[in-house]
Amino acid sequence: MKPYVLGIDIGGTNTVFGLVDARGVVIASDSIKTAKHNRIEDYLDELYAGATRLIEANDAVDKVHGIGIGAPNSNYFTGMIEDGVNLPWPTPIPLAKMVSEKFGIPVAITNDANAAAIGEMTYGAARGIKDFIMITLGTGVGSGIVINGQMVYGHDGLAGELGHVIVKRNNGRLCGCGRTGCLEAYCSATGVARTAREFLEIRANEPSLLRNIPVEQITSKDVYDAAISGDQMAKDIFDYTGTILGEAMADMIVFSSPAAFILFGGLSKSGELLLKPLRAALEKNTLQCFKGKTKVMLSELKEADAAVLGASALGWEAKPIETPQVPA
Amino acid sequence: MKPYVLGIDIGGTNTVFGLVDARGVVIASDSIKTAKHNRIEDYLDELYAGATRLIEANDAVDKVHGIGIGAPNSNYFTGMIEDGVNLPWPTPIPLAKMVSEKFGIPVAITNDANAAAIGEMTYGAARGIKDFIMITLGTGVGSGIVINGQMVYGHDGLAGELGHVIVKRNNGRLCGCGRTGCLEAYCSATGVARTAREFLEIRANEPSLLRNIPVEQITSKDVYDAAISGDQMAKDIFDYTGTILGEAMADMIVFSSPAAFILFGGLSKSGELLLKPLRAALEKNTLQCFKGKTKVMLSELKEADAAVLGASALGWEAKPIETPQVPA
Repeated sequence: MKPYVLGIDIGGTNTVFGLVDARGVVIASDSIKTAKHNRIEDYLDELYAGATRLIEANDAVDKVHGIGIGAPNSNYFTGMIEDGVNLPWPTPIPLAKMVSEKFGIPVAITNDANAAAIGEMTYGAARGIKDFIMITLGTGVGSGIVINGQMVYGHDGLAGELGHVIVKRNNGRLCGCGRTGCLEAYCSATGVARTAREFLEIRANEPSLLRNIPVEQITSKDVYDAAISGDQMAKDIFDYTGTILGEAMADMIVFSSPAAFILFGGLSKSGELLLKPLRAALEKNTLQCFKGKTKVMLSELKEADAAVLGASALGWEAKPIETPQVPA
Repeated sequence: MKPYVLGIDIGGTNTVFGLVDARGVVIASDSIKTAKHNRIEDYLDELYAGATRLIEANDAVDKVHGIGIGAPNSNYFTGMIEDGVNLPWPTPIPLAKMVSEKFGIPVAITNDANAAAIGEMTYGAARGIKDFIMITLGTGVGSGIVINGQMVYGHDGLAGELGHVIVKRNNGRLCGCGRTGCLEAYCSATGVARTAREFLEIRANEPSLLRNIPVEQITSKDVYDAAISGDQMAKDIFDYTGTILGEAMADMIVFSSPAAFILFGGLSKSGELLLKPLRAALEKNTLQCFKGKTKVMLSELKEADAAVLGASALGWEAKPIETPQVPA
């Protein structure tokens, strides 16, 4: 097997790519602006030029086994970026095929949370764990589910959208997906900011450091800073968030009985502010036969490398796109 | 491979067992009373005698490949019936080992809902479907989850307890598991009877055929009969039940994106009374990218044979229990 893989993480703002070896060392990486090009072809030209520079500079020509791509709304089975995604090009996009033809290297794609789970399984906290659920707490809430050592893609390649389980059935918050009450509307970074605005309004007479910030500009980082400074309302916001997440995770346990949850993304770095109420809610709400069995862990991948590492891990399983055989 | 398997379904009241061929034909079956014996050894003696009679009468001596057992709270990995189960013997019970030693045939066990799912996959509606969720609507609500053609057992062998996802987070009904708001407390046969009692009390001035029955004796069958007779309250009870089930199923879809749900058990025979509100709630609550993709099907296994068939299907994958090697 060739010794390297190329990992590409396509975000709404930046596309980060890196050359990775079998031990999960990012040999070199670089990035381009995702939205700079209106035409996907121009974007791929720049990506190809940048990645080729990396490969050549590191003596890796003809040594790249596969390319793994993490991209929003992308489908492992079809290799397509599906509809309804915040990227500057018309969808669906047959991305795996386009990148594979461009580079002459096999390509596999999946969504960013699945890529993170594969990265964690290959290089991180989930090594040796056959049943776990990765939950990414960023601008949104994503998930990657591994059962019996295999990623769960579902019948259509799109499984593992646990940010969209309903945690509040009635009068829930409007979610970006158009429904109401999704986990993501509460336990993402933006969800925490929404909770802050709600608490400031409901508890109008209670002083809080958060009142020093224009209400529409409050971020989850502001809430974190206030909580660390001892602000009661900010601490209560984390309690509220962790409790909802723990309750939702208790419901995930009855589905697949994972050995561990692995939390990843900005909010997961809030540490015990989030984890303490989360663990309490998980323990309280877990069905008796599963109580105390499922670990809650934090990602072991370095934030700067994680996206590329996750995507790259998928590169090891990339296979050439099959060309239909034409009978002679 | 030997041509037959023996399926054993252990229920709280009856234990049904049958000799099954590779096409899923129940060659012969019989039953004994589960609770007749206070000692598991005596129970197994009677089971062995009964099954041996079947095997001998059908010229199947030395032709049984394996024994599959469906039993409550049983663990595929350990072969044990775990704690907290409504059977007359002290738990945990190393049932797979005990039965295997008794018969001299490899044994595999799992819970009844998983057995039903394996039966459906082997002989029924799920043939050829690699991703589906079986939901059993009986006295309780059970589930068997198949992902990528494999049963989901989780890290501890106990996964797939979807009757215990929380459908009502606050002020939910007390469930047999000790928590509140579980799906099972609403969408089981007993849940339907509870809904009937609630509706009769809340809608105290509304006439209903159900008022002709002593309130504590109302069963889901009574509600079904009343609904078929056009009783509005009874129809509303099915609407309520189907809606809750459909909402819960929409949350299951974001987890594993199954190609199909397969409903099994007494309540599933209510037909459109249950399925119409269920499908409406499922459609309304499903995340956009999954809408309209997941079929809702009814089990194709005959009720009388289903439990034995499901258990028997597991017999095909039973392997001899490994005896630790003693160094010479």
